[in-house]
Amino acid sequence: MAGIKDVAQLAGVSVSTVSRVLNKRGYISKETYEKVYQAIDQLDYQPNQLARNLYNRRTYFIGLLIPDVSHPFFAEVAKRVELLLYQHGYKLLLCNTKEKANREHDYLNMLRQNKVDGIIIGTHMLKTSEYEKISLPVVAIDMSLGEQIPTISSDHEKGGRLAAMEFVRNGCKCVLNIGGNTDVKTPALIRNRVFQELLEKHHIRCINYELKENEFQRGEYYQIINSLFDRYPEIDGAFSTDVVVVYAVKCALERGMRVPEEFKAVGYDGVDIARMFHPTLTHVAQPFDLLASNLVDTLIRKIEGEEITENRILPDVELVRGGTTY
Amino acid sequence: MAGIKDVAQLAGVSVSTVSRVLNKRGYISKETYEKVYQAIDQLDYQPNQLARNLYNRRTYFIGLLIPDVSHPFFAEVAKRVELLLYQHGYKLLLCNTKEKANREHDYLNMLRQNKVDGIIIGTHMLKTSEYEKISLPVVAIDMSLGEQIPTISSDHEKGGRLAAMEFVRNGCKCVLNIGGNTDVKTPALIRNRVFQELLEKHHIRCINYELKENEFQRGEYYQIINSLFDRYPEIDGAFSTDVVVVYAVKCALERGMRVPEEFKAVGYDGVDIARMFHPTLTHVAQPFDLLASNLVDTLIRKIEGEEITENRILPDVELVRGGTTY
Repeated sequence: MAGIKDVAQLAGVSVSTVSRVLNKRGYISKETYEKVYQAIDQLDYQPNQLARNLYNRRTYFIGLLIPDVSHPFFAEVAKRVELLLYQHGYKLLLCNTKEKANREHDYLNMLRQNKVDGIIIGTHMLKTSEYEKISLPVVAIDMSLGEQIPTISSDHEKGGRLAAMEFVRNGCKCVLNIGGNTDVKTPALIRNRVFQELLEKHHIRCINYELKENEFQRGEYYQIINSLFDRYPEIDGAFSTDVVVVYAVKCALERGMRVPEEFKAVGYDGVDIARMFHPTLTHVAQPFDLLASNLVDTLIRKIEGEEITENRILPDVELVRGGTTY
Repeated sequence: MAGIKDVAQLAGVSVSTVSRVLNKRGYISKETYEKVYQAIDQLDYQPNQLARNLYNRRTYFIGLLIPDVSHPFFAEVAKRVELLLYQHGYKLLLCNTKEKANREHDYLNMLRQNKVDGIIIGTHMLKTSEYEKISLPVVAIDMSLGEQIPTISSDHEKGGRLAAMEFVRNGCKCVLNIGGNTDVKTPALIRNRVFQELLEKHHIRCINYELKENEFQRGEYYQIINSLFDRYPEIDGAFSTDVVVVYAVKCALERGMRVPEEFKAVGYDGVDIARMFHPTLTHVAQPFDLLASNLVDTLIRKIEGEEITENRILPDVELVRGGTTY
């Protein structure tokens, strides 16, 4: 079996150069990189990454703890985070917590046991003290996990304002405002609060509805919204995440309401469904590329020893007008 | 710092029992499991999984190689596979290849270097010989990667037949049949072939279109389909995956065609978008739960030493009627 010395000899470089290439450490010219990898391929050399990692005390593993990778918001984040980590030589361990505290707890233990280099968390089912116990670098996406853990989020205040003003401009009179579980500490709740304030300021009736934890299952959205239509037949608009608002528009259309003439809708996120739906959803787009690059950049800087605790709010949210408002 | 002996003492069990709990080996009663984990929590004991894995030659890591986790089909598969692996004590390394051969090659090397215990592959950009070189247990989802690698797939022949007969029953005259890249060796292509044969047998014009590799980007679907509508104004139906068909229905509605009166559509997969869209898509549902459990079950059996090479075709595809056909 080929060893690292054989690779070095065939590539015409030193053993330490091969080691640097394998560990992605220091500057390596493109030419050297290619020579080394050609030799590795030719000899079918298989360095034992586990043993190497034990020696250099890095695993190059990052854990991603999210409720559900099939939720479009998290799918967009996971895809981008994984691509960026790959470019930095890191691998992504995917953990779907399904919004269950015991699973989150298990996963955190597992990630610590496997000595991942850092964790990105987009869920919050445990007490803040549990997150503060984690001795590894952690970055939170849209969750407030304690003072030591930086949160990366969009400017939800601006997002809520952009959405509210669209209903004001469209002359709505009674709008559904569907937000997340207010027990969960997330800056995302700000948008629904700002939305409500602005609507009331403009004398528009705002019906607030809180999607509870156990209603996180998307299969139930349709029924929940249908029953809200039954209860409030006077509603002429809805604001929530894209995935929820799509069901509101669907309910309105099924009840024979014309969109946008009799029913207006604004989604939040800017995931594919907003563009796929007919009519295309008017929505507030979150800056997914920036969210992912800030998450990865902050985490890697923390892994490399920088102390970062302050939160970062990305101002680049914008209203994208579709066919569900004028 | 607490050691394994401290955990055993506090839990009132032997060191080897703690070890069995940590390694998820052999039968452990619920009671013992809980006592051990209570002791681990209380002492904040952190076993070094990496060192342990080096010793017992298992990493409990599984690689999942797919084109894009934000594609709804793969998101549904990834979610379920991850949940099942978690229940078996395995962790999932997520790898998005973006349909690029060099990324797929890099990932396969990375997974071998990290000594994952097995790989699930849902992409096929490399030569078959590259997959045959992998000495690890491999299972393929919907891809033919060589004789040694078992493929798990839905019964696409039945799926194509169910879809075709829906258009026959609805009296369509000219139907778009949009399939994947025929250069990729996947049993999924069977459905479009069967679909075409049955339509022609019933004297219905079938316009076949092949989505090329570089058109895998969902952002381009809308334009591609719009130009197909321009080129074939006589089409009165479309068959493809849910994600593609949704754009066809959207184009038809935008052109003022009534659905299903003047335009019929049948999707394939049964992802969320099929239910979220208005009108709800008539679609052929793939058995996602069964797909995931067969993938995980086959892979784990291979890891445990069983020799499995035969493919498995799941017959449980079914037509779910929505509002895009009668």
